[in-house]
Amino acid sequence: MGRVLSIQSHVVFGYVGGKAAVFPLQCLGYDVDVVNTVNFSNHSGYGRLGGTRSTAAELGQIFESLEQNLLLLPDRLLTGYIPGAEGLTAVADLVEKLKSKRPDIIYLLDPVLGDSGRLYVAPDVIPIYRRLLPLSTIISPNWFEVETLTDIVLKDLPSLRRALTILHQDYHVPNVVISSIPLSPWLKDALPASISSNLDPDANHLLCIASSATTDTSTVHAQTVQQLPGYFSGVGDLFSALLLAHYDPQSPSAVSRAASQALTKTHAMLRLTHEYAETLPEEDRQGTDDEKDAADPLRKVRRMRGRELRLIQGQDILRGIGLQDTRELQPWADFWAS
Amino acid sequence: MGRVLSIQSHVVFGYVGGKAAVFPLQCLGYDVDVVNTVNFSNHSGYGRLGGTRSTAAELGQIFESLEQNLLLLPDRLLTGYIPGAEGLTAVADLVEKLKSKRPDIIYLLDPVLGDSGRLYVAPDVIPIYRRLLPLSTIISPNWFEVETLTDIVLKDLPSLRRALTILHQDYHVPNVVISSIPLSPWLKDALPASISSNLDPDANHLLCIASSATTDTSTVHAQTVQQLPGYFSGVGDLFSALLLAHYDPQSPSAVSRAASQALTKTHAMLRLTHEYAETLPEEDRQGTDDEKDAADPLRKVRRMRGRELRLIQGQDILRGIGLQDTRELQPWADFWAS
Repeated sequence: MGRVLSIQSHVVFGYVGGKAAVFPLQCLGYDVDVVNTVNFSNHSGYGRLGGTRSTAAELGQIFESLEQNLLLLPDRLLTGYIPGAEGLTAVADLVEKLKSKRPDIIYLLDPVLGDSGRLYVAPDVIPIYRRLLPLSTIISPNWFEVETLTDIVLKDLPSLRRALTILHQDYHVPNVVISSIPLSPWLKDALPASISSNLDPDANHLLCIASSATTDTSTVHAQTVQQLPGYFSGVGDLFSALLLAHYDPQSPSAVSRAASQALTKTHAMLRLTHEYAETLPEEDRQGTDDEKDAADPLRKVRRMRGRELRLIQGQDILRGIGLQDTRELQPWADFWAS
Repeated sequence: MGRVLSIQSHVVFGYVGGKAAVFPLQCLGYDVDVVNTVNFSNHSGYGRLGGTRSTAAELGQIFESLEQNLLLLPDRLLTGYIPGAEGLTAVADLVEKLKSKRPDIIYLLDPVLGDSGRLYVAPDVIPIYRRLLPLSTIISPNWFEVETLTDIVLKDLPSLRRALTILHQDYHVPNVVISSIPLSPWLKDALPASISSNLDPDANHLLCIASSATTDTSTVHAQTVQQLPGYFSGVGDLFSALLLAHYDPQSPSAVSRAASQALTKTHAMLRLTHEYAETLPEEDRQGTDDEKDAADPLRKVRRMRGRELRLIQGQDILRGIGLQDTRELQPWADFWAS
């Protein structure tokens, strides 16, 4: 299949960052070169953690040694959480070098900035992500990250069009995939019937949009999945890894096809994880309650622990064995029609 | 299957340490908590590398956070290369804690000290490994590491018996598995006919011995594999991971059975890697030549790169799919007979 260079966080326990991305890529046949931007005990959702961030000097030294030893050989590149502007600059320098040596390298840039209206990185990384955008093949921001990168508040179809235009035309991003978009009423109303007619009126849904640049505008595909209750960590990291793994540049509608695979598998993995969490004793699945969580930190820890992705138990899903309910993205033909 | 805490080295490129152990354990159904004792660009066989060692303080902080967050939950423990006496002491303290909290934890200790007569760690780690020995369920030293830990030169059957007696009785190690032993003439002559009668007279062989302590002495099993030309890195790390993965404490002859699986799969993976290396262009498979390697460091780099284990391409082997030539260990009934 080829070789992926993955640059993102490492946690000892659980599945976020590299721990959510590397195993799926390996299962799908990729050799993965794994650069750890942090070495932490667990993800930050637990409320406390131990470990260290790799400094820019440490990252630079690793990249230099790889180059010296002729080991910078990736066909594909995946970048995720990289703490700090200096470290991100070291990565951006590497990406430029790889891209100039091999212009056809497939680069999936997951611009990890924040979620649900909250930035969880220092604001000085934003311009560096903007510098990386033109080097990417695909970006996989969430809704909030699209807003942050484009300075557009997404509140209606025209603003969504404006944001995609900025990404495709100003930043020269060939492909934008936004997963897990809360399906607000205006977005639901704008959807083509092929998608909206299949919505379960009793469930909440999340939308996934794939937009591939054309000369003037872009080709847009979309699909929904049912939203599962509660928060799961590492979902975006898993989705991005699967998106990169399934992207076949030779295939027509390459990004929409890859997003269909990634959406189907990620959703199946979430369902498996949700079903497992439901079997846990009550003390391990107490709902989010900021007051109670603050009074008893272990309350949050137990909830988080029970909601770690079931990647290992669900590895057949990663390999595409016995998948049901394929979430094929559908053309959104009149997306650009006024 | 359960949860393994793996504490060993990490390399970005290639397959040694954790990169050789974690994926096989995951394929076989284990959740793996991964502690990186170093973060290096590549293994040391390339002649040069970049990256950093985790300090004892960093390791201690990660262990403390895991404990605080109730995330020290392993059923099994695997330790490999840990640089420096201070870091190893931090690990030894953790092992003692885990063992006292959960006496039935299965601990595979791979005492990484050196190979072929050469120590590649500082001598002050040796007493700390000796402190760890009584905490282990299985140890997987190579020939040289047995000599180093026991202070016995292995030169005949009586010296091998003495070394095993020291490990089992003085250090209370329940199970000792020594793989990749060069089959010297005295060792060949001592083998039972069930093993020696199947040796190919035109090939070199390596011996694997598994010794399980009994009240007085031990039960010994053994088997050979054909030696493949040249040196492969990460083989011991892969073998140890498979040995731990296949160890079923409920099964009779648990260690000999697990060693049979580990030997069969490791040998099949080596054969796959060797066959691949043979297909490379000539400049990527120049034999070891210290003089030429010194004159052109990239000569060595190219050879090493072509001999990285083909874990990803051979993942069916890890899962036990389509395995041929099972290397079942055979009883060495008269091992202790004088």
